[in-house]
Amino acid sequence: MAITTVQVHLGPRAYPIHIGADLISRADLYAPHLQGASSIAMVTNTTVEPLYAQRVRAALAASGKRLIQIVLPDGEAYKNWETLNAIFEQLLRARADRATMLIALGGGVVGDMTGFAAACYMRGVPFIQIPTTLLAQVDASVGGKTGINHRLGKNMIGAFYQPSAVIADTRGLRTLPERERCAGLSEVIKTAAIADCVFFEWIEAQIEALRACDETAMIEAVRRACEIKARIVAADERERGMRALLNFGHTFGHAIEAGLGYGQWLHGEAVGCGMALAADLSVRLGHLDEAARARLARLLQAARLPVRAPALGADRYIDLMRSDKKANAGQIHCIVLKRLGEALMTPVSVADVKVCLEANGVSTSEQREYDPRIY
Amino acid sequence: MAITTVQVHLGPRAYPIHIGADLISRADLYAPHLQGASSIAMVTNTTVEPLYAQRVRAALAASGKRLIQIVLPDGEAYKNWETLNAIFEQLLRARADRATMLIALGGGVVGDMTGFAAACYMRGVPFIQIPTTLLAQVDASVGGKTGINHRLGKNMIGAFYQPSAVIADTRGLRTLPERERCAGLSEVIKTAAIADCVFFEWIEAQIEALRACDETAMIEAVRRACEIKARIVAADERERGMRALLNFGHTFGHAIEAGLGYGQWLHGEAVGCGMALAADLSVRLGHLDEAARARLARLLQAARLPVRAPALGADRYIDLMRSDKKANAGQIHCIVLKRLGEALMTPVSVADVKVCLEANGVSTSEQREYDPRIY
Repeated sequence: MAITTVQVHLGPRAYPIHIGADLISRADLYAPHLQGASSIAMVTNTTVEPLYAQRVRAALAASGKRLIQIVLPDGEAYKNWETLNAIFEQLLRARADRATMLIALGGGVVGDMTGFAAACYMRGVPFIQIPTTLLAQVDASVGGKTGINHRLGKNMIGAFYQPSAVIADTRGLRTLPERERCAGLSEVIKTAAIADCVFFEWIEAQIEALRACDETAMIEAVRRACEIKARIVAADERERGMRALLNFGHTFGHAIEAGLGYGQWLHGEAVGCGMALAADLSVRLGHLDEAARARLARLLQAARLPVRAPALGADRYIDLMRSDKKANAGQIHCIVLKRLGEALMTPVSVADVKVCLEANGVSTSEQREYDPRIY
Repeated sequence: MAITTVQVHLGPRAYPIHIGADLISRADLYAPHLQGASSIAMVTNTTVEPLYAQRVRAALAASGKRLIQIVLPDGEAYKNWETLNAIFEQLLRARADRATMLIALGGGVVGDMTGFAAACYMRGVPFIQIPTTLLAQVDASVGGKTGINHRLGKNMIGAFYQPSAVIADTRGLRTLPERERCAGLSEVIKTAAIADCVFFEWIEAQIEALRACDETAMIEAVRRACEIKARIVAADERERGMRALLNFGHTFGHAIEAGLGYGQWLHGEAVGCGMALAADLSVRLGHLDEAARARLARLLQAARLPVRAPALGADRYIDLMRSDKKANAGQIHCIVLKRLGEALMTPVSVADVKVCLEANGVSTSEQREYDPRIY
């Protein structure tokens, strides 16, 4: 079977991302990373476990190492301290030690939490990521952002901590609900929008193939998104500068997720809508032309992503956006587009954000149920 | 006023340890680290706050930055997730951001928790340590070990995360209870025992001056202990090898702390007793001669440290020691002395640990109240 490998160049923390069909069963991909391991602890969730765990276990069995399995409840709502502590409890009870290899089998939530558990357990143990959603394959798998949510803000507690390897199996993406796959396309589109106009055009041409999960198109999309992100991360591992551009759509997006309650919209849906808003703001601030904004909005809609802002009330948006990790001394910072393929971070005034939100139908403090499919 | 500075050489994570009398009031020591800060969050506890916080606040005021103050309950029993989360809550509510400088004002518990909070808050913010106990000045301030306890083991959750600077004010040590100061001498003795026989002899000669907190002797003790530890940490930041030698006395010591309940014995007392046991084990395994063991035991007793093992029951010791972070695949690893000034890490059998414990009066499963002053 064809296999593509993207290297993330981070010196002593460099690691490979293997991309292709049916990779999770391949013992040879795990073997080089398990040689020094005293045992293996696989962390997954109740949804993913019945789909993939048996095949991963079979591949890991070749190593002859003791396997600990930890199954978490499924969903963003569980990306919190209680679940993280459940991982620690089970690791300690099973006498996992500093040479235990953690394996994150699941989507972004499992990856972020397992990665953060690996960063903190006994002050750091190694881990391998097996992202099972498109979103996790193109986003969470590159760059070592791990963490949990706090009720006062998303991903507020965490670490930069790189995996030993990522195994992105594109075959499984076909069994994902379409909604999940579309949410994943959001981060693919984002990567293109901030850094690669040619890739953006390719996505426009392939959007139906991608929605239908055509395998060749999907492997190519994952590879190019990972390559772009890996290049940015290699230049700025701890987000002192250009890495912040990967947050395009996330300042609005995080406010939507926190405002609606984690798990109401998928992360990719919130980011999709956040990109539409950030592009609108980019036009208002004179950075982007209207034709480019409309083109992005069309692609987001073709990917079945919501582009209308939920009416949380402008004040609630502002309040949440001021808690964003990019904020500095209370000043909101936002990623804006200069053109398709180029972005920059800029401080934005509360007044400008309000005008943008109001123009997008957010004016009152009302809050009701929001189905992302009608936005 | 005289000031001594020990540099911890860790490349991009290098930092200075300033040692001397009345340093906490010196705005010039804080200033270079506050230039890029958006605000300052000082974390302290209810015991330390009334003693030192006003002077630190006055020195920080020179920076003109907004100051957030977070006061924790005092004691090892609070070195847990709940207290850590209280720090996160208050940082988020006060809108601390990625450019907020945390300041840890207190002993080892405040330092370990504030450092871990700094490591995790928004995936990492800078921090300055102001250790107010001798133990924290010579141990917690060097090498970036941060973390919290888990009820299944001490310091099980944490990170290696270096401060921007350490300000070790030796003047305040005079107001410490003698018990605290003696507990701190335990780590000074440990450093000498594993790495520097000349320093060991110096401590023997100065033990009364140190107990009485003679300022010249104390500055010298802190400086030499920090220098030795800094040298070891610079060679092995993440404890893959020789840094583990700094755990001399800690495998038994952690078992004592966890077995008695955190806070019953001071950390330094448990480590003092742990060193006596580890030295005894070193003799039994043929690494150390009896005269050296007796000399170490005499120095520990001169420092008013307990040298008799609390009778937790040998099985409880073994169980706790198998959870130690140095354990690998269930095998206990212990630091033993070859001579005063030289140590090595070695796997030890359960049988050897049991013989050692029994020879030191631990044979039953009994557990009662233990006053470290009579041990």
